[in-house]
Amino acid sequence: HKIIFNDEIKDHLNPASTIICNDTRIGLAAGSDNKNRIMVICGTGSNCFGINESGEEAKVNGWDYILGDEGSGYEIGIKALRALMRAYDGRGKNTLLSKTILKDLGIKNIEELIKWAHDVSLTKDKISEIAITVCRTAEKGDKISIELLKEEAREVLISISTVVNKLGLVNKEFDLVFVGSVFKCEKYFKSVLMKELKEKFAGINFKPLIKKPVEGAIKLAIQNI
Amino acid sequence: HKIIFNDEIKDHLNPASTIICNDTRIGLAAGSDNKNRIMVICGTGSNCFGINESGEEAKVNGWDYILGDEGSGYEIGIKALRALMRAYDGRGKNTLLSKTILKDLGIKNIEELIKWAHDVSLTKDKISEIAITVCRTAEKGDKISIELLKEEAREVLISISTVVNKLGLVNKEFDLVFVGSVFKCEKYFKSVLMKELKEKFAGINFKPLIKKPVEGAIKLAIQNI
Repeated sequence: HKIIFNDEIKDHLNPASTIICNDTRIGLAAGSDNKNRIMVICGTGSNCFGINESGEEAKVNGWDYILGDEGSGYEIGIKALRALMRAYDGRGKNTLLSKTILKDLGIKNIEELIKWAHDVSLTKDKISEIAITVCRTAEKGDKISIELLKEEAREVLISISTVVNKLGLVNKEFDLVFVGSVFKCEKYFKSVLMKELKEKFAGINFKPLIKKPVEGAIKLAIQNI
Repeated sequence: HKIIFNDEIKDHLNPASTIICNDTRIGLAAGSDNKNRIMVICGTGSNCFGINESGEEAKVNGWDYILGDEGSGYEIGIKALRALMRAYDGRGKNTLLSKTILKDLGIKNIEELIKWAHDVSLTKDKISEIAITVCRTAEKGDKISIELLKEEAREVLISISTVVNKLGLVNKEFDLVFVGSVFKCEKYFKSVLMKELKEKFAGINFKPLIKKPVEGAIKLAIQNI
């Protein structure tokens, strides 16, 4: 574990007895005891991190809104907003999202949506919450929403497959710990992704992260005493 | 022309003798005398605006970085950065962009690029300038860059086609005024777009905007005396 301390932290913690690490590492420790284990987060952001029995590590994605966060709630939200504007312009197909997004945001019309999108107080979390609307709209049969969710599920499949390949786990038994709000989207995201993963990797075990990440932090600390 | 005045402007300009309008309208007036005329901008942002002989108007795209600016330098820059990160992760194919972008930005490695992308002083213009790098990299034969530019050219084709349809100009003679830094990208953007446009619309005349937009502003003012 590479430990990076800045001067402010040094006043509060002893560098010799402190591990600072990515939250994926803590979640992974909390969610799996398997020696071959991978964790994928699909929340506001999305990334994938894994460790194999030789102690090798691999991490992909999760580069934020400029460099890319494919498969995240933020990405789904942005794509949904753009689908809405395409429909408004006549550049794209009509979609139920034109109604459902405005309704869920409590916004009256496109003029207000444009103001909303340029408001300085707009956060990545707010955009990410639109993923819930997309999920519900897909379940009503909206083709644009269904395709959008499947596209992002494919992105997560690419992330996980890349980590599996890097760790040499293609034909091995391993745990996949998964967590994040986007996994609440069952039919057109979670199920699509899991079906593809099962077909590609026979030895995969799906482990929803139920324990609190702090339990993983404690586990890591005990292992390093 | 809908005139919107705020209190600050009122102190300096007389509302009764002032026209406030989008810069596309000025550019369009400067670039064409045809009664059927369309203007497309592909700079940092991208939008398309047109007027037909009946005085009907149509405008699409140009919704900025959240709601969408397809076909813009900004969009090309963002997609290029993401292609670079995909290659770095092993999620995507190798691309020459991994070298050319860092070189043109004067950045040593990925760690520095991540800092650059999160710097508060990063502007849309800076991201948009990466389009020039993508263009040069495409001309060296890089497949990812070529595909990226063609994709954005297709987006601009969709924007223009939508305006043409809305104004009922499919089978008529009309001017297309074009301007913006992305049109400097000849081989895989401008040529691709113009070839497609010629095939779809036999009556199209291409008019690069050579005059200064201010000349269009003067023209509009004289017409409204």
